[in-house]
Amino acid sequence: MVICIYPVSGLGEVEEGVRLGEVIVDALSKGGLTLLKGDIVVVTSKAVSKAEGRLVKLSEVNPSAKAVRLAKALNKDARVVELILKESKRILRVERGIIITQTKHGIVCANSGVDQSNLPEGYAALLPKDPDRSAEVIAKQIEGVCGVKPAVIVSDTYGRPWRRGQVQFAIGVYGLKPILDYRGKLDTYGRVLKVTEIAVADEIASAAELVMGKTRSCPAAVVRGYEYEVDAGKAKALIRPLKEDLFK
Amino acid sequence: MVICIYPVSGLGEVEEGVRLGEVIVDALSKGGLTLLKGDIVVVTSKAVSKAEGRLVKLSEVNPSAKAVRLAKALNKDARVVELILKESKRILRVERGIIITQTKHGIVCANSGVDQSNLPEGYAALLPKDPDRSAEVIAKQIEGVCGVKPAVIVSDTYGRPWRRGQVQFAIGVYGLKPILDYRGKLDTYGRVLKVTEIAVADEIASAAELVMGKTRSCPAAVVRGYEYEVDAGKAKALIRPLKEDLFK
Repeated sequence: MVICIYPVSGLGEVEEGVRLGEVIVDALSKGGLTLLKGDIVVVTSKAVSKAEGRLVKLSEVNPSAKAVRLAKALNKDARVVELILKESKRILRVERGIIITQTKHGIVCANSGVDQSNLPEGYAALLPKDPDRSAEVIAKQIEGVCGVKPAVIVSDTYGRPWRRGQVQFAIGVYGLKPILDYRGKLDTYGRVLKVTEIAVADEIASAAELVMGKTRSCPAAVVRGYEYEVDAGKAKALIRPLKEDLFK
Repeated sequence: MVICIYPVSGLGEVEEGVRLGEVIVDALSKGGLTLLKGDIVVVTSKAVSKAEGRLVKLSEVNPSAKAVRLAKALNKDARVVELILKESKRILRVERGIIITQTKHGIVCANSGVDQSNLPEGYAALLPKDPDRSAEVIAKQIEGVCGVKPAVIVSDTYGRPWRRGQVQFAIGVYGLKPILDYRGKLDTYGRVLKVTEIAVADEIASAAELVMGKTRSCPAAVVRGYEYEVDAGKAKALIRPLKEDLFK
């Protein structure tokens, strides 16, 4: 098994209402690449948010008293803090200009995923409302134009406790099993492997980041050659309930 | 930029004293693959531990009273607990049969990385003593036999707070900058990106896991096509000091 990762470049600026699956196929074919059965398409949540109209004009946000208070303490824009609070289910920690929240999707991340990079001045992007659903929509758009329905991962870039630097994770998944469960299987010595669940959807998202970069205007990638288990799995399966968390 | 990831299979069982770099080149050439300038070789810490003689015969371990006490509470082998304690700098949490520690390298992980999977009965593997040094040794062995010195990553599989499933991270790095720092660079709108450090060494390790699997006896992979920054960087750069940790 050899895995290859292709950047989807030349996508141009993603406007609200754009059918991302279609422009991805278009950009790929201009680059001479045709999607094959078994391909996985990874798309950044930022591109999905833009296509789904999840950009907010900050001048239209009225921050609450709580947001104003928090913003002052953190030296942040109160309108951005208002969005962070609105997108969160709970606040886990506030420090050094960062608000660690659990989003309404259940994801634990900085600032509820509200982000101002790679956006026009005066705007902030919220995460897609239902990234698993977004992945499904993109897969079906792709199938509609080229007849091949790939697995799709919507990715976002997050920090990790205890480790420096951010990596891409999967926040939306369609058509592949996000976690490979080796529990109960035998190792090479015939012993049962104890706890080994591999978060392959996160690993695929991380692999895709290597061709995407941050400033190179490449919001999508194709991962070819990875033999995944087809499944109705959702990225929600990657979220560990807070009460189960050993590391808290 | 297209990135391809090749498994290094047919390596056979890694015995103590084996020169891993040499057997990797050998296995690759049997598979028809020649290393090229710019390639990255990822090797699992388990293979490195075996080659470096970091396997411990449990019958030769004398558990301390503390290890016996902890083992009883966790329903674990006291000799394994003894090794976990010995390998740790501090214990962060104990729950459900798992001891979360900070290892002497500074890595926060389950059971100090002490592992019994894919080993003969009655043995446990400790992490390599100095995985950055191990990576360097492997790179130089490879250069010695084929004239090309690749970047090398020693990887291990860890769980993550708040997310289900494990992913591969880099615990040893040689010849590439483990973290790409985009701070101060401009986004596509000409705005300065605020906090964006990408842990590319961890992403490369995760990408490599996709071809390695857990039970397929493939302890190494070649990542080709990723344009990395050559650097004297070490995997230690990926470890966030506990006092800086926002998520704690």
